[in-house]
Amino acid sequence: MSRTQTARLMDGLALARRIVEETAGKAVEIARRVGVTPCLATVLVGEDPASVTYVRMKRARCAKAGIESRLVSLPATTTTAELVETLQSLSQDAGVHGILLQHPVGPHIDERAAFEAIAPEKDVDGVTISSFGAMSFGLPGFASCTPGGIMRLLDEYDVNLAGQHAVVVGRSAILGKPVGMLLLARDATVTYCHSRTTDLAATVREADIVVAAVGRPRLIRGADIKPGAVVIDAGYNPGNVGDVDFDTARTRARLITPVPGGVGPMTIAVLLAQTVDATSIQLGPAGH
Amino acid sequence: MSRTQTARLMDGLALARRIVEETAGKAVEIARRVGVTPCLATVLVGEDPASVTYVRMKRARCAKAGIESRLVSLPATTTTAELVETLQSLSQDAGVHGILLQHPVGPHIDERAAFEAIAPEKDVDGVTISSFGAMSFGLPGFASCTPGGIMRLLDEYDVNLAGQHAVVVGRSAILGKPVGMLLLARDATVTYCHSRTTDLAATVREADIVVAAVGRPRLIRGADIKPGAVVIDAGYNPGNVGDVDFDTARTRARLITPVPGGVGPMTIAVLLAQTVDATSIQLGPAGH
Repeated sequence: MSRTQTARLMDGLALARRIVEETAGKAVEIARRVGVTPCLATVLVGEDPASVTYVRMKRARCAKAGIESRLVSLPATTTTAELVETLQSLSQDAGVHGILLQHPVGPHIDERAAFEAIAPEKDVDGVTISSFGAMSFGLPGFASCTPGGIMRLLDEYDVNLAGQHAVVVGRSAILGKPVGMLLLARDATVTYCHSRTTDLAATVREADIVVAAVGRPRLIRGADIKPGAVVIDAGYNPGNVGDVDFDTARTRARLITPVPGGVGPMTIAVLLAQTVDATSIQLGPAGH
Repeated sequence: MSRTQTARLMDGLALARRIVEETAGKAVEIARRVGVTPCLATVLVGEDPASVTYVRMKRARCAKAGIESRLVSLPATTTTAELVETLQSLSQDAGVHGILLQHPVGPHIDERAAFEAIAPEKDVDGVTISSFGAMSFGLPGFASCTPGGIMRLLDEYDVNLAGQHAVVVGRSAILGKPVGMLLLARDATVTYCHSRTTDLAATVREADIVVAAVGRPRLIRGADIKPGAVVIDAGYNPGNVGDVDFDTARTRARLITPVPGGVGPMTIAVLLAQTVDATSIQLGPAGH
């Protein structure tokens, strides 16, 4: 393949819009048949400006998808015990179908303990160990939203995964680790790289599929992308810069996600879709 | 390195014996201080000869380690619901500190449902999703026994893991997947290979550490071992044959586990050690 090739862009905006429309249709259908509006409770601790912006975006998108959005704002001084109690109480509230804890929470909070207070059937953000197990073992359950969105993008563009070498750069609990498990479940050969990997470039050069999920601007050099590879950039750094050097990578890749407009919009779309799915499941046969 | 080199053997028998002795010491100490003997309940469904043999071996080893062994034998016709009930009841029994469900259980039983009926604090075999999450996220909890045994062997022989490329061949829920997560937690770059991997030999040739965990005799050719690599063979096939072609591999590797006498004995040793640890934890401050 020549260097003058330009990769096809994986349009997350368009796919996300379609998913939100389908989700809205399902929400309307549930409301019509059972008289219940799907409800997502969002818990925000403190007033970190980025978190406040994300929460506002998610709530606006809920409105578009016909999902009721309940905001629980807690002060920055909230303790782990108080947050756990709030999440347990939402887990037991029959009027709430999905729960999102906006994270990261402050460093004084045990984030894992908070996540685990979310009932698995309401864990539409896919952050609990139960959801990670479901993703890892192919059991019923919700995906972490960004990994789930990445898988939908790969499917939308008919990317063959079986036997392909997927290199995941990053190993966070809600992005790198679960996306690797989802790729493995689809029969990819999966390599996890991270900050301690000795020769990242050499590993990336062998990847049929690269998933960059580390949050370091342009860490992946375009020159290291194997010609014809599929590049998923889940990084989102200041100045709309991804983890991949986009301009060079697109001259070598076959498919690539832009930043913004690639993985980003998919995250919220999956959150909404899973909220409506959770509602259906919780309502039982009547909800389907 | 020349081909006439012979790898140092990783002696799982000797290390396992030492762990069992240490475990016995701890069990005696608990009995002396609190008057409680650590108790492992083993649940056996049916009379599969291999399972019966394993259970007998484990019970004999319990006796050596000062652990009381309670055997619950269920007929082959046991249903999932009945097995779940048995495991839940053992989970609530204060006289039982660890629970082992001998597996595989029959094909008519939902093995995952059975595993999940084991309380995480008694899951000394490390089979629950909760234990997998602990291994994956570096949280307190029990390791799957074979992966836990592999990590102890690697540490015993001072194998550096950080930044090393570990190739795990196999992706089962209790061996391949968790050992990869444990290696990742120790900063190895981890690749999961399996039956759908396109070019297994090429991937193995790049491995600093190979973990073979797939149960196919001599699947890994010795010629594909990188000179100086560390080879962990968790395969155990008829005729005492591992997943690695031992005779050739040992001329190239730096360290290698024999079959038998490598990984095998470690599995039971970790089971016993974790049973006594579980007892300490359940007894609270008095148990330490």
